[in-house]
Amino acid sequence: MGPFTLSLIGIGTGSPDHLTRQGIAAINSADLILVPLKGPEKAELADLRGAILDDVLTNPGTRIAPFTLPLREQNPGNYLAAVEDWHTAIAASWQQTIAAHQPAKRVALLIWGDPSLYDSALRIAARLQPRPEIEMIPGITAVQALTAAHKIALNTVGAPVTITTGRKLRESGFPPGVNTAVVMLDGQCSFQHLSPEGIEIFWGAYVGMPQQVLRAGPLSVAAPQIIQARAEAREKHGWIMDIYLLRRQGR
Amino acid sequence: MGPFTLSLIGIGTGSPDHLTRQGIAAINSADLILVPLKGPEKAELADLRGAILDDVLTNPGTRIAPFTLPLREQNPGNYLAAVEDWHTAIAASWQQTIAAHQPAKRVALLIWGDPSLYDSALRIAARLQPRPEIEMIPGITAVQALTAAHKIALNTVGAPVTITTGRKLRESGFPPGVNTAVVMLDGQCSFQHLSPEGIEIFWGAYVGMPQQVLRAGPLSVAAPQIIQARAEAREKHGWIMDIYLLRRQGR
Repeated sequence: MGPFTLSLIGIGTGSPDHLTRQGIAAINSADLILVPLKGPEKAELADLRGAILDDVLTNPGTRIAPFTLPLREQNPGNYLAAVEDWHTAIAASWQQTIAAHQPAKRVALLIWGDPSLYDSALRIAARLQPRPEIEMIPGITAVQALTAAHKIALNTVGAPVTITTGRKLRESGFPPGVNTAVVMLDGQCSFQHLSPEGIEIFWGAYVGMPQQVLRAGPLSVAAPQIIQARAEAREKHGWIMDIYLLRRQGR
Repeated sequence: MGPFTLSLIGIGTGSPDHLTRQGIAAINSADLILVPLKGPEKAELADLRGAILDDVLTNPGTRIAPFTLPLREQNPGNYLAAVEDWHTAIAASWQQTIAAHQPAKRVALLIWGDPSLYDSALRIAARLQPRPEIEMIPGITAVQALTAAHKIALNTVGAPVTITTGRKLRESGFPPGVNTAVVMLDGQCSFQHLSPEGIEIFWGAYVGMPQQVLRAGPLSVAAPQIIQARAEAREKHGWIMDIYLLRRQGR
């Protein structure tokens, strides 16, 4: 394999209309686009990636290469070590797929949201040989899709905001030093572990997609509603991606 | 003035290629686009907004309405009260401009970055009479443009990130509970006030624009370089917009 550029293209949170002009140009300048064949990602999401390519890919020279996405160990003893192993396995799959589709000077991946936020592509790419030149194309994150859907500001005037994970919220509670926290990667409705007094929640599932579901209100009132809405939506669609913003009042 | 929709369109950080398909569609579905005539915003930025409209506006029915952007009081005694007064003055200017361009069922504003992040449009809009129906179109933020330019992840694996302001960094130091902080709205190189040991900085000015300037390194080494590069760039262009990411090592 010769030297190549790996373009990490942020495609937004599920609406093809989140694509930027830069993203569309990057898709069309690729020789090879790696697309996960199956794995933890659900069929509807894979279809959406296909629909995006059908919609915007006009370069007849661009080839689509499916690759197998290895599964991550569930509930491992050592979380960080399990993530490392998973990244190594994905890198091997990318490496094999790129090698099977030579020549390819420009290889691209379509990344949900933005390639910098809770995404592993950059770390996986660092394991490739030869190490590719990286190009990052920013995309709309679920954070922005959530605030847009609720028509709210992310921050209160001049105040900081913390973006965190469900795991961290369970371990450490409401983040210190801020009145706004956005929680991602939370499969467990971790807001249940907070003392709800004075906290407002703005929750969304499938934000930016046609099946979008939103709930908001004081955490004490909204929490059980969200738990129920989330379970129903997951049952109905077979998968769920959700995110929420927590705001402490009067701070 | 009859009922109307106010569309807050995130246009990204200065590259017309940051525009999303949704943003382009929203621009073209507007009856009236409010564009600031002058004020604190510099000519190059105003030109860029004009260039974006020249580039993507194809609806002959869309009118462009310049409005006067009032100046904010500099170094006020009461920061939050001064911001309130400023928002009220801007709302009055919008109100007058919209009234002068009736009928207009769909009014739009082009917002740098994303309308939810350190932007006042949503709060100003709440002062309009009649209160408009709000539509928010997410845009690429300077945070994403910065990480893309430096080809770095925003977060370390599974870890939280705080987005804050120069003012807050000066008042409160490195944000608690996180190893990554992104600092916006900082005219004073407030990273100088931190003890630099173990902190890495990734700085960018004009991120996403042709005149983009980047610097990165251990804060102890990079801080004086950034202060100099920032002063030179500001001198050269007559204005500057910058942002940086601070990462604590080994945490």
